[in-house]
Amino acid sequence: MVGTPETALDNPKVGGVADARFFTRSGPFSGEELAEAAGGEFIPPREGAEAGRRYIGIGPLQSASPAEVSFLDNRRYASLLDGTHAGMIIVAPAFAKRVPPTSATIVSSTPYLAWSRVARMFHPAPPARPGLHATAVIGEGAVVPSSCEVGPFAVIGNGVKVGEGSIIGSHTVIGDGVTIGRDCRIGPQVVVSHATLGDRVTLFPGVRIGQDGFGFAVGPAGFESVPQLGHVVLEHDVEVGANSTIDRGSVQDTVIGAGSRLDNLVQIGHNTRLGKCCIVVSQAGISGSTELGDFVTVAAQAGLIGHIKIGTKARIGAQCGVMSDVEAGADVIGSPAMPFREFFRNVATLRKLSKKPGSGEE
Amino acid sequence: MVGTPETALDNPKVGGVADARFFTRSGPFSGEELAEAAGGEFIPPREGAEAGRRYIGIGPLQSASPAEVSFLDNRRYASLLDGTHAGMIIVAPAFAKRVPPTSATIVSSTPYLAWSRVARMFHPAPPARPGLHATAVIGEGAVVPSSCEVGPFAVIGNGVKVGEGSIIGSHTVIGDGVTIGRDCRIGPQVVVSHATLGDRVTLFPGVRIGQDGFGFAVGPAGFESVPQLGHVVLEHDVEVGANSTIDRGSVQDTVIGAGSRLDNLVQIGHNTRLGKCCIVVSQAGISGSTELGDFVTVAAQAGLIGHIKIGTKARIGAQCGVMSDVEAGADVIGSPAMPFREFFRNVATLRKLSKKPGSGEE
Amino acid sequence: MVGTPETALDNPKVGGVADARFFTRSGPFSGEELAEAAGGEFIPPREGAEAGRRYIGIGPLQSASPAEVSFLDNRRYASLLDGTHAGMIIVAPAFAKRVPPTSATIVSSTPYLAWSRVARMFHPAPPARPGLHATAVIGEGAVVPSSCEVGPFAVIGNGVKVGEGSIIGSHTVIGDGVTIGRDCRIGPQVVVSHATLGDRVTLFPGVRIGQDGFGFAVGPAGFESVPQLGHVVLEHDVEVGANSTIDRGSVQDTVIGAGSRLDNLVQIGHNTRLGKCCIVVSQAGISGSTELGDFVTVAAQAGLIGHIKIGTKARIGAQCGVMSDVEAGADVIGSPAMPFREFFRNVATLRKLSKKPGSGEE
Repeated sequence: MVGTPETALDNPKVGGVADARFFTRSGPFSGEELAEAAGGEFIPPREGAEAGRRYIGIGPLQSASPAEVSFLDNRRYASLLDGTHAGMIIVAPAFAKRVPPTSATIVSSTPYLAWSRVARMFHPAPPARPGLHATAVIGEGAVVPSSCEVGPFAVIGNGVKVGEGSIIGSHTVIGDGVTIGRDCRIGPQVVVSHATLGDRVTLFPGVRIGQDGFGFAVGPAGFESVPQLGHVVLEHDVEVGANSTIDRGSVQDTVIGAGSRLDNLVQIGHNTRLGKCCIVVSQAGISGSTELGDFVTVAAQAGLIGHIKIGTKARIGAQCGVMSDVEAGADVIGSPAMPFREFFRNVATLRKLSKKPGSGEE
Repeated sequence: MVGTPETALDNPKVGGVADARFFTRSGPFSGEELAEAAGGEFIPPREGAEAGRRYIGIGPLQSASPAEVSFLDNRRYASLLDGTHAGMIIVAPAFAKRVPPTSATIVSSTPYLAWSRVARMFHPAPPARPGLHATAVIGEGAVVPSSCEVGPFAVIGNGVKVGEGSIIGSHTVIGDGVTIGRDCRIGPQVVVSHATLGDRVTLFPGVRIGQDGFGFAVGPAGFESVPQLGHVVLEHDVEVGANSTIDRGSVQDTVIGAGSRLDNLVQIGHNTRLGKCCIVVSQAGISGSTELGDFVTVAAQAGLIGHIKIGTKARIGAQCGVMSDVEAGADVIGSPAMPFREFFRNVATLRKLSKKPGSGEE
Repeated sequence: MVGTPETALDNPKVGGVADARFFTRSGPFSGEELAEAAGGEFIPPREGAEAGRRYIGIGPLQSASPAEVSFLDNRRYASLLDGTHAGMIIVAPAFAKRVPPTSATIVSSTPYLAWSRVARMFHPAPPARPGLHATAVIGEGAVVPSSCEVGPFAVIGNGVKVGEGSIIGSHTVIGDGVTIGRDCRIGPQVVVSHATLGDRVTLFPGVRIGQDGFGFAVGPAGFESVPQLGHVVLEHDVEVGANSTIDRGSVQDTVIGAGSRLDNLVQIGHNTRLGKCCIVVSQAGISGSTELGDFVTVAAQAGLIGHIKIGTKARIGAQCGVMSDVEAGADVIGSPAMPFREFFRNVATLRKLSKKPGSGEE
């Protein structure tokens, strides 16, 4: 026995936003301090005094207390403003007048960004806890500065170079020769091989980077694997979600552009290249040698065939099947992909044609 | 060298149902004992004596021996009844007369459930083997009762609380502050953080629970991560399949209702809430803040957009793309989702319209 | 501190094809030696001397040097022949005349296969580094020949049998009773249980083999798990991509036929059977008890319902939803699946019908 037993769910006080079991907390802060951090305009409550008020944390509109800050970003939830007890609310200008008279307001043209900064002020991300766990295995010639945190059972290969302040989670495997930048956060149970990572790269648990691409030729006795001799480059500030997979290139490199964000269970094939600040949502897949420009969005479960080009700022809809090039700025959806307007016109046409004549359905 | 070498596949005797290399075995049992466990009606064979018969195990209709029990659940396989040698067969009432005369029968209105219980009787799940492996790392203030099994290289964080009789697999990482109920079965290489698990929760290998949801705001220098300050609640009896991912909430919690079953490679976004006994089949994805009622079924590869509500007992078909609320009890399929009948009427309409006039195709 | 710190991306000389940080290198080789390995016809350059030329490596057409070998396989990239500096190029007969006059040529009717062999000649796969890491945990009665490589923190269960020359990656878990053939390459962080693997099987990181299939019956108090009493057979030369999942059978076995290749994030349900040399591309899923013949191709994100049969050499298109049997040799796509020609005819029909009459669109 280790410690004192207790049944799960025994303690009704835990749970809710920013549970102290899981999150650090700082503050309290004044409204002006928060508005400055948020980059928004501070408006005191129309009723009651603001002077001396201090906010201690954040909460959703439904449950935030007068000492907490909340926000409205999605128009869909605007009616929640009527009943909220939040002491301060971050909103877009259009909603400023709907904030209850007893609540202070931060008005921002980018309320979600403002909220993000306020939330981060109350709950800063925990810093690296420098040190190599005694069980970690470090290869020959590996460079791991003392500012780094390396978790239990991590395996760092020969010649690996890690930048200052990076975190390598427990059980994570960094293959021989890999280079990792500064202030990266590599979660537990990640495998990285044949790769170069920039600074501030975040990999969530179970990410697989750098394994062989899916390449084989048909030989006389079955398939023969084609050597995959490229590597993977994750530029600065890339984030990759849990259990996503990025194969290394065959003769070119697989490249994820700076600032791009990949969600969970995403697949990136060999030689694929993403530009800067692309977004790839959960369970989407991009086949080999396809190239995305900057600021491309690929929604959930979309699939892109190999060897095509997607222009800058194009948006690929959920479950879209893209079989050919997409122009910059285009919005496509459907399988095969077509412009949004055409897709929904098709849906309407087919519904109309399928109505039984004389059935009274219209 | 460890042990004596042997080439794979050398031993033709292994394999088949309930291979002794992998499964425990109990019995033999009489037909009456099995029928009672199954909750069905026992009918002795119409030819030959039942008295004194004992059954030693189970098998499929194609290969079960006269000492084994088999079952028919899917009408598609009814013709297999004609040639089977199984000594006892579990069937629905409609098939009772098609059981061969030399076989005993258990008649049940829920033959699959009856079969499940008979199979469990012959092959009970192995219990926890209490003890902490010497290599496991246990954090400060963690509570792990001596009835628990903790595998090699497991990492249990500070303040974690585990209930009696639970199993934590090898290499599994339980983050600081997590609470786990009684009799849970956490497989190897699982990562759980920012979460509360009820009793009898089962997590298969590679499950990722509690990582940051996919949330970021557009800042002046690129995307800025929005702090994800909720947690994940898995209620009693939840099961999550291999390599599935469940993100923690942003300001609310992500909740999987009691008794729900998630298959492999499923994605659950932040703030999502599933009711009781929901079923989510492989590779389906549910986006953030969507709410499912009780007994909802989401079939394989379906995708649900965020911020919608799915009513109780609704059924979402395979590969369905759900972009708006679905009423309780509705059956939908297609992308975008529509009622089953409408979907297949559309398919028929389009096929008819695409026939070349005068081509002789009909 | 371990070693000397260095910031990521400091060294501009790294990167590119076959980076020495990651890949072994042999050679140089003469044109004749390479042509023989490739099984192609050697043609010296039309201009300049070939005698005494030696090639030192490979590269893409865009960047290969006169000392390197390149290839053209995809007609889409034929224009790259005009500007290449590659010293030798592997092409199909139709492109032999377009090779620049200063380049040598290997002509092959299977240029991708020829390329594969030449690349492998320069960069042979690293052999196993025999030995058990001191931290590996080996179960009772396990057989692991001294020719095997077992990585740090691997856990090999009781009674496991591993063939000569196989590699078991770090943190990989091999469950009790599993049999693994010769010359297998099991990557890091793989979990295999309830399974028999043939020779030369390759499993990439995060693969999950042998967990319970998704089977449960509806009981009076919720779902009851149905015991999954089969196992998984991976025949010789099977490869399974990163984070893919293959469930064990319920009463039959799940079987992946010899030489089959599965990509990343693929799901294979219980009792499913694939024939020889099947290809299953990323994020595709095959439901329980479905049977594939030999040489079946399932493209990315396709989904197959359970309990159906797919004939030999059938090809299932990307994102296809297969709800019924598919004949041998058929090409299907769409959801629900239909012949390729019918699918694209439907797309054209619907586009035509959706045009607004009199809108000037045609």
